[in-house]
Amino acid sequence: MRFTLEYVDSETRARAGRLETPHGVVETPMFMPVGTVGSVKAVSPRELRRDVGAQIILGNTYHLYLRPGLEVLRQAGGLHRFMGWDGPILTDSGGFQVFSLAALRKLSEEGVWFQSHLDGSRHLFTPENVIDYQRVIGADIMMVLDECPPGDASLEAARRAHELTLRWAERSKRRFEETAPLYGYEQALFAIVQGGVFPELRRESARALVAMDFPGYAIGGLSVGEPTELMYEMVEVVTEILPADRPRYLMGVGTPANLLENIARGVDLFDCVMPTRNGRNGTIFTTEGILNIRNRKWQTDFSPLDPGLDGYVSQTFTKAYVRHLFQAGEILGLQIATLQNLSFYLWLMREARRAILEGRYRSWMNEMLPRISRRL
Amino acid sequence: MRFTLEYVDSETRARAGRLETPHGVVETPMFMPVGTVGSVKAVSPRELRRDVGAQIILGNTYHLYLRPGLEVLRQAGGLHRFMGWDGPILTDSGGFQVFSLAALRKLSEEGVWFQSHLDGSRHLFTPENVIDYQRVIGADIMMVLDECPPGDASLEAARRAHELTLRWAERSKRRFEETAPLYGYEQALFAIVQGGVFPELRRESARALVAMDFPGYAIGGLSVGEPTELMYEMVEVVTEILPADRPRYLMGVGTPANLLENIARGVDLFDCVMPTRNGRNGTIFTTEGILNIRNRKWQTDFSPLDPGLDGYVSQTFTKAYVRHLFQAGEILGLQIATLQNLSFYLWLMREARRAILEGRYRSWMNEMLPRISRRL
Repeated sequence: MRFTLEYVDSETRARAGRLETPHGVVETPMFMPVGTVGSVKAVSPRELRRDVGAQIILGNTYHLYLRPGLEVLRQAGGLHRFMGWDGPILTDSGGFQVFSLAALRKLSEEGVWFQSHLDGSRHLFTPENVIDYQRVIGADIMMVLDECPPGDASLEAARRAHELTLRWAERSKRRFEETAPLYGYEQALFAIVQGGVFPELRRESARALVAMDFPGYAIGGLSVGEPTELMYEMVEVVTEILPADRPRYLMGVGTPANLLENIARGVDLFDCVMPTRNGRNGTIFTTEGILNIRNRKWQTDFSPLDPGLDGYVSQTFTKAYVRHLFQAGEILGLQIATLQNLSFYLWLMREARRAILEGRYRSWMNEMLPRISRRL
Repeated sequence: MRFTLEYVDSETRARAGRLETPHGVVETPMFMPVGTVGSVKAVSPRELRRDVGAQIILGNTYHLYLRPGLEVLRQAGGLHRFMGWDGPILTDSGGFQVFSLAALRKLSEEGVWFQSHLDGSRHLFTPENVIDYQRVIGADIMMVLDECPPGDASLEAARRAHELTLRWAERSKRRFEETAPLYGYEQALFAIVQGGVFPELRRESARALVAMDFPGYAIGGLSVGEPTELMYEMVEVVTEILPADRPRYLMGVGTPANLLENIARGVDLFDCVMPTRNGRNGTIFTTEGILNIRNRKWQTDFSPLDPGLDGYVSQTFTKAYVRHLFQAGEILGLQIATLQNLSFYLWLMREARRAILEGRYRSWMNEMLPRISRRL
């Protein structure tokens, strides 16, 4: 993996970069559609490539470990071949899911025991075996196992989580260096900055991880219930410390506005279930604003779903038609909404990148924010 | 609408034809994917065209009348524009749905009162208003309102239904001739042969309808619980009488084997929910046979979903992957299964047509039947 910083904005910390992976180039800033259980829900890999313009997608170790299981993935030759996506993949370590989804987890220095949310079976994740599992999955970018405390964690709890995450990062790096990829291409390992909403902890975490020299850094434990302004503050605190020549990935964030604000604070990569999950619930992001497609006001609105976006779903289907599909419970409605939302997120990233490269990120962002945040 | 008979097989009654509609040509024999409520479930119009190779799809007056409602369709400029499908559409009259779905129906000479299966609201379908509704929908081919008795109907009940259907067909034709299309292209009206499983009634029905001179004839009231052999017998009895120069449409049929057998008996058009509905339940039709994709035996079968079919889903996704999607409840599984099944049905029709045109339909069918009926 190689990261090249192409341009840094002079008015903000926004950056444009180029991340080369064994499965292709990722132009940053970039949003990664979430493919939790081996598919980006309701979207085929062909649509991801051609319609959405996705350059990298996210998989999840916790979910893939449980289903289809590592033996299936190993026999398939890794996740890329299993799911028919030949572009880059980043896998989350599963830390977040163990702390948010699993029942009866038990944390120790060694790792974390948890019960599957599917069948109650007991499993142990350690920094080491999670590296091994991601070797089997074959992600281009793997993440260390971390402890992700809740958004309202006390200073003491946040400190404990950050310190454990540091020790686990060391063990992860060691295991990474002791093992080899299984499918003939290199994999990279990113660290995760923790520290809750406490600037000093965030700085400690970032400095210690930077000293360990990872090829990329994620910021974890945000967008987990804390106020948005605190999220922005933590991102600022951390990106001040992270080295300019390494990609920065803000995990699990967020709204279109969150993305633009965090790009201004120096973030390169994002992932979030919002465009896919909210799409399936009928919330549609467009270049004109956000709309609840179930609303009666769209019943006879025969304008395109998003007049401002090129592309099949945005231009072919009307608001009235997509509303009808949701009202009638037709699966095609979920497909169209998901494609529209992901297409919009990726369009926003391309536009952001262009604005950065043209040295007008701040003014572009200030013009874009009210437009894309408006409720229609 | 114009129908040209291109070739009639000498060993069977199989026919190859060409149906010209205002929205394009349909090469028969042909299967029509079912788009009940304004979408072919889990398939976009683009996929229907490019992946499935669909030439005509089916809509349903009963469902569209209830949702989105005729006023929405009128303002949209008809169903084609509403759903973004620019190929031919045939609409069922709703007769079958009123008799199978609606609650508390009350049949009279005038028409049929029924309660919506959605909200219990009361509605009246008459031969006349169902023509008006299909004018609003804008189908290239409309169907008369008919009474569809159950598969175990007595001779007396089947006779009453057939006689009512005849009187309704006259009224339908009159209303059709008194009204004009709304969107600038011609529409055609097909009659429906009824008569249960009673050859003499079927003959009476067919002869009377032929005397009324419709541009096409459907065979209704089959595949509703009667033995398969009786269905074949009724089709034979009817196609003996129907004029050679008019298209013949067997409603609601059926399995791949049913299609081939009925093509041999002179049928040109089919529709059925089987490829879409069974696909969503994990039953996958392939050129090698029929498989239940949920079965554990596919867990590590990394062969293509259908090695014998070209096309994106058949070749890109493995049986193991599609099984995983079904096990994990991922929507993409429904999408892939539906596309595969429809692609298979359309492939089967293209191959059947080729065999007919090359004068080898019977031998082709005999070779194909065991292959496509096999349970894998």
